[in-house]
Amino acid sequence: MRNFKIIVCYDGTDYCGWQRQPNQPTVQEAIEDVLGLLEGAPVTIAGSGRTDSGVHALAQAASFQLSNPLPAENLVMAMNRLLPPAIRVLSAEVADDEFHARRSATAKTYEYRLWRRRICPPTLCRYVYEYAYALDEPAMSEAAERFVGRRDFCSLVASGGGRQTTVREIFSSVLERRGDVLLYRVRGNGFLYHMVRNIVGTLIEVGRGNLTPKDIDRVLEEKKRSAAGAMVPARGLFLVSVEYGDQ
Amino acid sequence: MRNFKIIVCYDGTDYCGWQRQPNQPTVQEAIEDVLGLLEGAPVTIAGSGRTDSGVHALAQAASFQLSNPLPAENLVMAMNRLLPPAIRVLSAEVADDEFHARRSATAKTYEYRLWRRRICPPTLCRYVYEYAYALDEPAMSEAAERFVGRRDFCSLVASGGGRQTTVREIFSSVLERRGDVLLYRVRGNGFLYHMVRNIVGTLIEVGRGNLTPKDIDRVLEEKKRSAAGAMVPARGLFLVSVEYGDQ
Repeated sequence: MRNFKIIVCYDGTDYCGWQRQPNQPTVQEAIEDVLGLLEGAPVTIAGSGRTDSGVHALAQAASFQLSNPLPAENLVMAMNRLLPPAIRVLSAEVADDEFHARRSATAKTYEYRLWRRRICPPTLCRYVYEYAYALDEPAMSEAAERFVGRRDFCSLVASGGGRQTTVREIFSSVLERRGDVLLYRVRGNGFLYHMVRNIVGTLIEVGRGNLTPKDIDRVLEEKKRSAAGAMVPARGLFLVSVEYGDQ
Repeated sequence: MRNFKIIVCYDGTDYCGWQRQPNQPTVQEAIEDVLGLLEGAPVTIAGSGRTDSGVHALAQAASFQLSNPLPAENLVMAMNRLLPPAIRVLSAEVADDEFHARRSATAKTYEYRLWRRRICPPTLCRYVYEYAYALDEPAMSEAAERFVGRRDFCSLVASGGGRQTTVREIFSSVLERRGDVLLYRVRGNGFLYHMVRNIVGTLIEVGRGNLTPKDIDRVLEEKKRSAAGAMVPARGLFLVSVEYGDQ
């Protein structure tokens, strides 16, 4: 058996997220089905993490074991021939036996795209959140930077997780304009359930003047979900990349 | 009653073309349904022409009559609030009583997008035709220019139309590279059923070396559908603009 690492790009619009679940189309299931055909036996893959229903990925990482002797480059072609066009394998390589897409990950980057004009082009509407109302973008930018550091993100996580710790380290958190898109990009050692979408919702509250950049510290310290802004829709969110320390 | 001209942008992927037909989602029906709600009575709209199932439009023109006294700018907002995100009204204006989106049109421009790399990003796959095989693009470019002029396009029209004439005038016909996309753009006084997609299929035959640029004249002169290349898929085709002589 060889241990593979693949990088996958997908349009999450028509999928109920990454993680396999009964009676729902998921990205994991689509990929496992294709690998099962190539392997002639069930294959289970590990993603670097889940992405929620409707969230996209520019470069999600996944690992799995395969006894099929296909060269890695041919595996990319074979998988793409069988996968729906909404999911593309960008690369495949044989990894160390110890490599595991989730456990080995050291950092992830997410991007959220806000469309800032009144009319959103139909070719973009699956990939942005249309928000044409006035926003104080410099204040949002200042607020975005305040998420950097090792912090308890309890106020920004969906309730009912039952996880051990809500402390995560954010390495960078930047808001920038790219034409008609207001782009939020955040890199950290890990992200909690709905955390990025809740951060963006909180930045919008700053943009609307309901919170100041300085309030971000208070929002985090209160450790209450109600202190932060409302969650923004999945369609504007992209998992941009997953980093592995040894690579 | 005022006579309106609107410009509409749409993602045709999930529609059975522009023209209303029973039991199929069409762009015309989606717009007429919304106008019917605003008018409180059925409204029939005239498009500049049909677009086929799966074909997109960056700026389709349509005209209709409305007794609702809504200002044109508010009509844009009201329609966009009710339309699905795959269809956006870009503008609306009150036109002369004589204006008719189809009969008044003097020229149209279409664009066809070929994706020239092996892996097509999922966010683009609805809007391009993936063609990663080798193509002689300079020869295709030379062939594209040979479609210019007043010609009988009988060889490039889907059979069974029963129309009076297959003569059309092409004002410009250009192939160009834009990064990983090979873009064909054609402007003419009118286009026959499937004509642009059959032109592109014929250009691909040139690119593959099965036809030379000079063969284009012969293809047109033979007046047989079998002389030209196979039709390419709808998803790469965009109606770019419609021109009206007096505007």
